[in-house]
Amino acid sequence: MASQELKHRLETTIENIPDFPIPGIQFKDISPIFLNPKLYEEVIEDLVKFSKGKVDSVCGIESRGYLFGIAIAVALEVPFILIRKAGKLPPPVVSEKYDLEYGSAEIETREGHIKKGQRILIHDDLLATGGTTEAAAKLVEKQGAEVVQFSFLTALKDLKGEEKLKKFNAEIYYILEY
Amino acid sequence: MASQELKHRLETTIENIPDFPIPGIQFKDISPIFLNPKLYEEVIEDLVKFSKGKVDSVCGIESRGYLFGIAIAVALEVPFILIRKAGKLPPPVVSEKYDLEYGSAEIETREGHIKKGQRILIHDDLLATGGTTEAAAKLVEKQGAEVVQFSFLTALKDLKGEEKLKKFNAEIYYILEY
Repeated sequence: MASQELKHRLETTIENIPDFPIPGIQFKDISPIFLNPKLYEEVIEDLVKFSKGKVDSVCGIESRGYLFGIAIAVALEVPFILIRKAGKLPPPVVSEKYDLEYGSAEIETREGHIKKGQRILIHDDLLATGGTTEAAAKLVEKQGAEVVQFSFLTALKDLKGEEKLKKFNAEIYYILEY
Repeated sequence: MASQELKHRLETTIENIPDFPIPGIQFKDISPIFLNPKLYEEVIEDLVKFSKGKVDSVCGIESRGYLFGIAIAVALEVPFILIRKAGKLPPPVVSEKYDLEYGSAEIETREGHIKKGQRILIHDDLLATGGTTEAAAKLVEKQGAEVVQFSFLTALKDLKGEEKLKKFNAEIYYILEY
């Protein structure tokens, strides 16, 4: 959906940093996008177009998922729900544990922020292995809401994160893929 | 500057959670604000009024400082610079270490995002002891820019964070104090 022109400008703005955080990984640094408020607004416009009229709430994953997520929710005039790492939100919370390559992690929302029956967009800046996004979707579903959309700025195709999200029968959108 | 009506609505939206994260602390949970996009927009309007025409860039402190900070920067049509916990931004970075009650912490920006001579607003959601904000201001100054404003949603007066920021000769603004 994004124009070739927007994609091209994003590609030339996002920085590729080899061997970060570990040797062999090509890190995509999106932080230069925020230096350019006009470009940021075009990204938001594109992500909003994908979700307009289709969702009742937006869930954003800490912390870079907040940077686009909050603006998507405000433009759609729907609630924005914080998904945070465990221990940061005060009780009562709803939690979901998931496995990482080494060890495990846990994410949370405050209880009551996601309402039963709501159609939810889960947004993050990056789709990598999909582990965190999958946990976010389970966290939404265990509260009786439905994940109808996932959106990302970028996706790393080789890591096959999309495979992990297929079972949710939700639309998946990302502007750029690497 | 904020109207009594806005302050009152924020006071009734922000939740007080006793004994979180440790006994004796009254935690102020701002996450319900993001459930109400209209209220969020009024907060942004108020924070933008404080900074309009006065700053060349906005620095937001991870992660809740992003939620208001990015919208302030976009409304002001100026760059938004991420201040992150150490190790999350790829090299090259500029870092600042600071002491916590137990141990120490470190924050970073990417090199080159803050330009020499810029007038900077540092934004975070909460002014508590001021330790992180003070480190953020030092991080800005060591890059040859000037901190001209600090803004927060709320300030905890008893913790005297404002004292720590006086040496920067910058304007300080918060909508609510507890």
